[in-house]
Amino acid sequence: MISVQEAEAIIQAQVRDFGTEQLPFEKTLGRVLAEDLRTDRDLPPFNRVAMDGIAIRYEDFATGTRTFRIKGTQAAGDSPIEISSPDECVEIMTGAALPPSVDTVIRYEDLELHDGQAKVKIDALQKGQSIHTQGKDRKQGEVVATANQTVNVALVGMAAAVGATQLTVKKLPRTVVISTGDELVDVNQNPSPYQIRRSNSYMVKAALEKYGLQADLLHIADDQSQLKARLQDCLERYDVLILSGGISMGKFDYVPQVLEELAVEKLFHKVQQRPGKPFWFGVHAGGAVVFALPGNPGSTFMCLHRYFMPWLQACLGIARQAGMYAVLNSDFSFQPPLQYFLQVKLNISEQGQLLATPLEGNGSGDFSNLVEADAFLELPAEGSAFQKGEVYRVWPFKEVG
Amino acid sequence: MISVQEAEAIIQAQVRDFGTEQLPFEKTLGRVLAEDLRTDRDLPPFNRVAMDGIAIRYEDFATGTRTFRIKGTQAAGDSPIEISSPDECVEIMTGAALPPSVDTVIRYEDLELHDGQAKVKIDALQKGQSIHTQGKDRKQGEVVATANQTVNVALVGMAAAVGATQLTVKKLPRTVVISTGDELVDVNQNPSPYQIRRSNSYMVKAALEKYGLQADLLHIADDQSQLKARLQDCLERYDVLILSGGISMGKFDYVPQVLEELAVEKLFHKVQQRPGKPFWFGVHAGGAVVFALPGNPGSTFMCLHRYFMPWLQACLGIARQAGMYAVLNSDFSFQPPLQYFLQVKLNISEQGQLLATPLEGNGSGDFSNLVEADAFLELPAEGSAFQKGEVYRVWPFKEVG
Repeated sequence: MISVQEAEAIIQAQVRDFGTEQLPFEKTLGRVLAEDLRTDRDLPPFNRVAMDGIAIRYEDFATGTRTFRIKGTQAAGDSPIEISSPDECVEIMTGAALPPSVDTVIRYEDLELHDGQAKVKIDALQKGQSIHTQGKDRKQGEVVATANQTVNVALVGMAAAVGATQLTVKKLPRTVVISTGDELVDVNQNPSPYQIRRSNSYMVKAALEKYGLQADLLHIADDQSQLKARLQDCLERYDVLILSGGISMGKFDYVPQVLEELAVEKLFHKVQQRPGKPFWFGVHAGGAVVFALPGNPGSTFMCLHRYFMPWLQACLGIARQAGMYAVLNSDFSFQPPLQYFLQVKLNISEQGQLLATPLEGNGSGDFSNLVEADAFLELPAEGSAFQKGEVYRVWPFKEVG
Repeated sequence: MISVQEAEAIIQAQVRDFGTEQLPFEKTLGRVLAEDLRTDRDLPPFNRVAMDGIAIRYEDFATGTRTFRIKGTQAAGDSPIEISSPDECVEIMTGAALPPSVDTVIRYEDLELHDGQAKVKIDALQKGQSIHTQGKDRKQGEVVATANQTVNVALVGMAAAVGATQLTVKKLPRTVVISTGDELVDVNQNPSPYQIRRSNSYMVKAALEKYGLQADLLHIADDQSQLKARLQDCLERYDVLILSGGISMGKFDYVPQVLEELAVEKLFHKVQQRPGKPFWFGVHAGGAVVFALPGNPGSTFMCLHRYFMPWLQACLGIARQAGMYAVLNSDFSFQPPLQYFLQVKLNISEQGQLLATPLEGNGSGDFSNLVEADAFLELPAEGSAFQKGEVYRVWPFKEVG
């Protein structure tokens, strides 16, 4: 049986490129840029007035002028008004383009205005004050966001600012989430006393939505020939198959055998971990990648976040994050020689410390605590008694806070 | 001028209840539950077999039986098969409902199977092993998620498991994001040398999408009568107006005056902070809440995350989070007696410490660094020299990791 680290390395060696597509910039939140975004003009595009007040020549103030005749009023968006004598000024608004004949802005708070004149009430000015100079933030053509960056809220605003109405982003893999198991009925059906409702597929689909990935759902009955026919179809139509269930040692766990008959090469089956030990991973001759996850909800959820998500991020070119670490907030023991993924609640102490508090659970079949959990804490297979205060790698699936 | 804390208290006193609505459970990710979610059956609903193998009566093993005749094979979802003599067993699969006549499961790894018989290879068993007992995770009717909880991925799965095809969630406020300023042109237009493109509204709209809130966008020219007519209309049609721009001291900053003419009571104007000092906040006689944010992108963004988002969370009943704190990762100084919101990048050290690294910026007009930033660090107005290693409150707007 391979280790978690070996499984991760095998999966990361199967990174795919799904190409790119163009989208309206407002539709790209959470997607990954496929090319650098550059400014079309300097930022700011002109010497931008940063306060409401008047604009003067500093030299005129320095040589003693304190009262200035208002030549005109220039709002943001207006063409610049030029002064033509040393005692003139322009009444000017935040966001206006500074006229070339002036170089310094004095805010209303430091002025007295009457009869078309502005009197300066202060004795000292800084030349060029209250002006956000052209190109100070970025020069024309400069990169404001790089390829492989995830589009965040500020980046949507930046795309608008530089007029990038369309953005080229990474395409997402065509993904199908497949459930198997005759004990499963649909959510709107009434299960018999021996049946349960399908829930894993919906959970997986919801997790992928965060990346803008709209997965298809499919249920296949525990029938070997049907399984084969439908999986064959999926292997042709999708880039990724995420299966849950059907990979244990049970008599009706046909999935591994059928996948191998369909020319899906098994790269591993079983990982030294809990939950999720029966995890099966392989690649089809045609290129499709198959994540066959154990059917227990806790196992499905863990494998999805520990293996699939990092693989998807790698496919999309998202920079591999350095590991994230948290402090175990109470003692915990786990005997078997397996890497244990402990469901934890995260919070940040007033000292800025990330604390991971274990949630009690009843094994991998129990997912009632997942609703409360923020992350898995990855406890090494070598250890068994884990002490409060020790630091371990953590895999969050919710925002920290 | 009021403090940040006073502004926050005034806003939090204006919390509204926008009612509830029913949605298909698959559409509720990120929404807030309006009622408790309960199990319709025990979880698990039956004594659930947790390993593939055979099921026996423990007593038979304890009294010496090691070889059991296989009475039949019971897959997950099948009706239970009962044994009728001490040397019988049921070959049984993970997920099956344990028949009442047996009480213990032995996995395949500990068996030899041939000629319809299973021979146990181990000497010790625990009575009831490899069974996930009925109701162990939750009893029928027990709460699995409470009102005011945000629907996360696991909760979507849980809703499916308990057959809650429709969930009652909090309604979101009808929201309009209004930009003002004649210097602004639309994103697909070519700005003159003195104009810039609208970007704030798109940024605000994108930020609200995280909560599933689809805001309308509206641009109003700097014309007092037009502004009045359109704001009046908005005050009738929306629960919340988020304006950006038009609230400084400029001659064309009609917004505060027009709002007051429209019976919007000003609750404050100007906050002792940078960026975002000109922030104006009020409530309409009809109930609508008006956040008039300064037009500089950095100011808009900060006020949105520091004031609007916590207000929205309070309206939706999301439990007020304890503050989140981070360690300042390099010295920083800021002289003016204003609460300073420093753009920072967050990361977590290998010791599990949340570190906030300042991003250099060029004042509130510069939002080019926001694309890189993860959070604002809130530096108290009383201080001016902030030292590396000190801990301050942090307002994240991206996931930490």
